[in-house]
Amino acid sequence: MPKKPEKTKAPEKVMVDAETLKKIGQAIVQQIKEGKVPSVSIPSRTSNNLVYDPANQYYVIGDQKISRSAGNIRHIKLLAQFLKVAWFCKDLVKEGNKHVTKRELYYISESWGEEFKFDEQPECDNVVEDIEAVIGRPREDFNIIPDNRGSIYGDITIKYRSPSGKFNTINCLDTPDGQSIGPRICEGEIEKVNADKVIAIETGGMYNRLMEEEAHKKFNAILVHTAGQAPRSTRRLIKRISEENKIPVYIFCDSDPFGLHIAMVIIAGSAKSAHVNHKLATPKAQWLGTTATDITKYKLRSDKLRPLDFKRLEELKKDPRYKDDPRMQKELQTWVKLGKKAEQQALLRYGFRFVVDEYLPDKLRELKAPGFR
Amino acid sequence: MPKKPEKTKAPEKVMVDAETLKKIGQAIVQQIKEGKVPSVSIPSRTSNNLVYDPANQYYVIGDQKISRSAGNIRHIKLLAQFLKVAWFCKDLVKEGNKHVTKRELYYISESWGEEFKFDEQPECDNVVEDIEAVIGRPREDFNIIPDNRGSIYGDITIKYRSPSGKFNTINCLDTPDGQSIGPRICEGEIEKVNADKVIAIETGGMYNRLMEEEAHKKFNAILVHTAGQAPRSTRRLIKRISEENKIPVYIFCDSDPFGLHIAMVIIAGSAKSAHVNHKLATPKAQWLGTTATDITKYKLRSDKLRPLDFKRLEELKKDPRYKDDPRMQKELQTWVKLGKKAEQQALLRYGFRFVVDEYLPDKLRELKAPGFR
Repeated sequence: MPKKPEKTKAPEKVMVDAETLKKIGQAIVQQIKEGKVPSVSIPSRTSNNLVYDPANQYYVIGDQKISRSAGNIRHIKLLAQFLKVAWFCKDLVKEGNKHVTKRELYYISESWGEEFKFDEQPECDNVVEDIEAVIGRPREDFNIIPDNRGSIYGDITIKYRSPSGKFNTINCLDTPDGQSIGPRICEGEIEKVNADKVIAIETGGMYNRLMEEEAHKKFNAILVHTAGQAPRSTRRLIKRISEENKIPVYIFCDSDPFGLHIAMVIIAGSAKSAHVNHKLATPKAQWLGTTATDITKYKLRSDKLRPLDFKRLEELKKDPRYKDDPRMQKELQTWVKLGKKAEQQALLRYGFRFVVDEYLPDKLRELKAPGFR
Repeated sequence: MPKKPEKTKAPEKVMVDAETLKKIGQAIVQQIKEGKVPSVSIPSRTSNNLVYDPANQYYVIGDQKISRSAGNIRHIKLLAQFLKVAWFCKDLVKEGNKHVTKRELYYISESWGEEFKFDEQPECDNVVEDIEAVIGRPREDFNIIPDNRGSIYGDITIKYRSPSGKFNTINCLDTPDGQSIGPRICEGEIEKVNADKVIAIETGGMYNRLMEEEAHKKFNAILVHTAGQAPRSTRRLIKRISEENKIPVYIFCDSDPFGLHIAMVIIAGSAKSAHVNHKLATPKAQWLGTTATDITKYKLRSDKLRPLDFKRLEELKKDPRYKDDPRMQKELQTWVKLGKKAEQQALLRYGFRFVVDEYLPDKLRELKAPGFR
């Protein structure tokens, strides 16, 4: 078992501080003082400003900006809403242990009066993403949260602030069914990780299997349940555990283009969150399987690929992240050739222990061999 | 605050014991020994065997049975599958701390050979439900589990068996983001409940809100997140907490027919699980809101009801559980009249504290008034 490298630097601050958000308003005040028409400049999130960053192997946004100016009659309300939401988030961050969902924010905005009124929630969500783009931080870092989803299990100790404001620590082994990934675990301080890898798992069935077969002990691993597509909060947590502790991440999904997509989003982020991918993507994470070649190698019970799957496979073949990767090209071609997909739980045909005694050891060996990234 | 009644009797055994499942096979052996053609008799789960039980206010199944006999060529495989699955479950229960999903069971069955082979998962699921009907216990009680969903927060101490087999206890306040409701929490022994009610909450946003506003302290309550429709494991846990500790349950949902349906399934079970409703339903639980009349009373932001909602409302008006309940009839008529629905999070228009300072106290007072069940 490789020795875990020493932790070399203090982790960066997880949460945005109030000052960062306050500066948005201060810049407006400054413009007014200088007799200028106040405006904000927001990095554009449209597709023509998406840029692939080959060094980091994920999408980022380019240099294009959009402006919202008080001098433009069509912009005034948008500018006011932008400032009001930033102001609200600044207060949230200051308060520290209060969080709101995007939906709650939308309802809260009703009390702000007609001048700030959103007709539909997407308008409000869009302003939140504008703020993300301006400060380069995901909304989870300024207390706007998704519903809890996913879970973490293993020997990792996290210091968190409880809803009542007190600081506590939890070891994620001391929980019967895995530690739910919510705002307080995500923004906690990772105090200690007794593991040399993270294994992220798509399905609840396989996550429970690995807990019960004690994969966390056998592989010295932290287990993370992504619950399908990993929410941004889970991706952020995986990235933090991996980067703060310099340990690798392996992603264990169903053998189909959607499973591969789940892995890809953890590795390279999504187009929709290109403006904050630098905080969410874990470029060094690796797709472990279940691969297309596993279907024949392990004689897995399989289903036919749907037309949508084939379409997705053709897109993936041309994806800049995969087009020069021989392993990935081979797997994509294998799916097309077989016309089949399989679930990770199909490995259970060999009983409870096969996945920990045979499958995962084989895969981890393979991924460490030269030629794999 | 009303005094919590003393715990009067020991809780019944949560899990099925191996003997109960073994008896299924023993009965077959006995029939063979007696020179009879072996067969099993399974309570019918078809709709014409559904019976409304007015005393308990939930659906149960009637006296009709189906038979699977080795003397019928079309039954032989079904009987073999039934016995094999029962045998597998008996081993699972004996093992104690292993659980499988229905999906895993389906894949595991592949290793049993052609004579037991299921062509599709629903065939395998159906056998599991047959076993439920025969022993009158939900599959969760013999270690066939759903994915974790939902969460519990508050001063409740549960003794559980960890994946490694050791017994531990957890207090559900000692968790940053709520305790995930998985198999080990569900089958644990409820050691202590420092609360005089349970509040079940539909949305993750409102669940987090109530945690952060410390509703569990203010209302001396255990908070349960149902995550939409409560899975059977969550319903079972709610029932156990309520009945073992003799404390009431209040269900707090969105103001729409689906929200009411979530409450109804906790209170009265579902038609699909009529054969195990006696283990899942909490007939004394009460629907707290958000009600139809709340939409106008609290001027909640609302959306139009869809045709499907109106159809559902007409069905609910005739439902035996509601047809003689004046409160429920009034609420159903109000939705129809308004043609609107609202979300529980819409209460946030009055700020973070309104729901704990005004809304919930009003509702709890109202539900305790004479005339409400």
